[in-house]
Amino acid sequence: MSGLESLDKPVPPEKLEELCVAAMLKAGLKKKHAEITARVLVSTDLWGVFTHGTKQLRGLLKNIRDGRLDPKAEPEVVRDVPAAALVDGHFAMPMVSSTRAMNLAIEKARELGTAFVGVTHSGHFGAAGYYANMAAENDMIGLSMCNVEPFMTVPGAKGRVLGTNPIAYAIPAGEEPTVFLDIATSAVAVSKVFAARARGEEVPPTWFVDADGNPSTDPSKIDDGAMLPMAGHKGYGIAVLIEVLSAVLTGSAVMSEVKSWALDLPEPSNQGHAFMVINPSVFMPVEEFKTRVDAMIREIKSAPKALGATRIYLPGEMEWERREKFLKNGIELPSDVVANLKLMAEEWGVEL
Amino acid sequence: MSGLESLDKPVPPEKLEELCVAAMLKAGLKKKHAEITARVLVSTDLWGVFTHGTKQLRGLLKNIRDGRLDPKAEPEVVRDVPAAALVDGHFAMPMVSSTRAMNLAIEKARELGTAFVGVTHSGHFGAAGYYANMAAENDMIGLSMCNVEPFMTVPGAKGRVLGTNPIAYAIPAGEEPTVFLDIATSAVAVSKVFAARARGEEVPPTWFVDADGNPSTDPSKIDDGAMLPMAGHKGYGIAVLIEVLSAVLTGSAVMSEVKSWALDLPEPSNQGHAFMVINPSVFMPVEEFKTRVDAMIREIKSAPKALGATRIYLPGEMEWERREKFLKNGIELPSDVVANLKLMAEEWGVEL
Repeated sequence: MSGLESLDKPVPPEKLEELCVAAMLKAGLKKKHAEITARVLVSTDLWGVFTHGTKQLRGLLKNIRDGRLDPKAEPEVVRDVPAAALVDGHFAMPMVSSTRAMNLAIEKARELGTAFVGVTHSGHFGAAGYYANMAAENDMIGLSMCNVEPFMTVPGAKGRVLGTNPIAYAIPAGEEPTVFLDIATSAVAVSKVFAARARGEEVPPTWFVDADGNPSTDPSKIDDGAMLPMAGHKGYGIAVLIEVLSAVLTGSAVMSEVKSWALDLPEPSNQGHAFMVINPSVFMPVEEFKTRVDAMIREIKSAPKALGATRIYLPGEMEWERREKFLKNGIELPSDVVANLKLMAEEWGVEL
Repeated sequence: MSGLESLDKPVPPEKLEELCVAAMLKAGLKKKHAEITARVLVSTDLWGVFTHGTKQLRGLLKNIRDGRLDPKAEPEVVRDVPAAALVDGHFAMPMVSSTRAMNLAIEKARELGTAFVGVTHSGHFGAAGYYANMAAENDMIGLSMCNVEPFMTVPGAKGRVLGTNPIAYAIPAGEEPTVFLDIATSAVAVSKVFAARARGEEVPPTWFVDADGNPSTDPSKIDDGAMLPMAGHKGYGIAVLIEVLSAVLTGSAVMSEVKSWALDLPEPSNQGHAFMVINPSVFMPVEEFKTRVDAMIREIKSAPKALGATRIYLPGEMEWERREKFLKNGIELPSDVVANLKLMAEEWGVEL
């Protein structure tokens, strides 16, 4: 018995972390790096964001096996001024470089009011929202972003031009949950098109264009197609900003230079990341700030409801409710995540 | 002859600035403040963004006449740490407070790598993009944002909940024009609905909802309606972030506390603003950064074109081309702008 059959039932987060750590140790990671990475991935599953949680560890370890990530590397601060810095990940596990960078931004912002830390020589860092929340746990506002390989068209073009570059933020509240958003700059996340294909369903024509640049409802056409930016030229513009802050500014791979972390390629993806922190205590006592955030949240939630709506959600609210439930009852992993974890466990010879 | 008839022909920007300065002097502004404000408004017209240029001066001067803005006030830095600060506008002309704040952010970022400066006790600051471009003129990346009175619904709600909070950025390039975006977080700017009403045209059902929360194509319904956020929950989430950075954090009016600057109300609008600057020279020589921005721009522009498209525009590119044309030939002011300027000139007894 490998114990892996227990993944089919709600699994306690610490068990899931153990499995992830065990696999990463086999792949050559230091214990501390494995623990950091497991925490990022399991925290993401706890929010119910399963596309970006432990499901991705198998691919990340494949990146190590293929030499695209270096399990022994230590991220290094290569440029450091009072309120900004650049971390060279040296192709360490991207969660390790990103956690290091966000911790540095938090330290700097605590002292100076705000900070910006970039990361280069990195790869797929999982859910951007995790790092933004690190700042919120320290009573500060956090932003986190990353460039990815081109998968999105832009107005006037037809093929894949820019990545669906994600951006996340987290804002600490008082009695209310942290406000947090984690979005791709495409109309929807690419994974939604793949999910529709797996279910044999059509998608709305606003999600992506086919190889000729025409809107398509057939998800099988995504293989030669390109996602549409959210809100047309507005999402395009925001994706450009993220490309610049994450990659142009940090000296990382830009646009077509980025190699998908999820494909069988020899080169590192060399994605860049950017982290920003703003310290509210510069402006007022932090408790007053959090009370003001609470008031904003309550005003939004108490707005008159649309026909058929019973509740208005703040960004992140659904995620916190799923986390609360999963912490109590164990995480209900979807079957595709379980299948992936079992394959990973087999490949690296680990048990639960 | 008042000379105002020359507004009906292409007008040299310096002439337009003179007219604006003259009116502001009559309203009691110091010469320096009047010149700063005229520069913001005329620069906006030069980009062809006429909704936010000199057309707005009449309303701003009305704010002064109504005691909602104080023409004699001097903005004051009331909190100051190395990489962040808060400017109390004391209800000075908002362009003056905003220029002061962005200049401070630029100074701080030049030395420290990044900076965040907020503004409170302010009002309508015009086009967010102007301030972002101040950073780009100094070889830095600038962000600029503002909260406004609620005019947008959020998912699950039906009335006006949040402002159409604008955000702008500017990124300096080398041989290519500065990349710059200035957007409302609503599906489209409110002014587009008003413009459709003025022309007697319908609008797409994705722009706004009527008083019952149903999508409407009849622009006359906007009076009791609410704009839709861009890209649904994504635009909603970004508007929340802007509300927090501009207003919750700076101690300004939040959501329903904001009084529209454009209405006849006695209280100041008390909007807040936020400015961020990131200094690329922390990461690499600035010329190298600008060369990398150029490369990104050229890769985007050279992407295969969609059917019927002949050209891909970078954010801001259309605005720079209009500016170039208007600098050469004079600004072709639309008739609504001219009518507004003539009324203003009459109200304040100024000539051109």
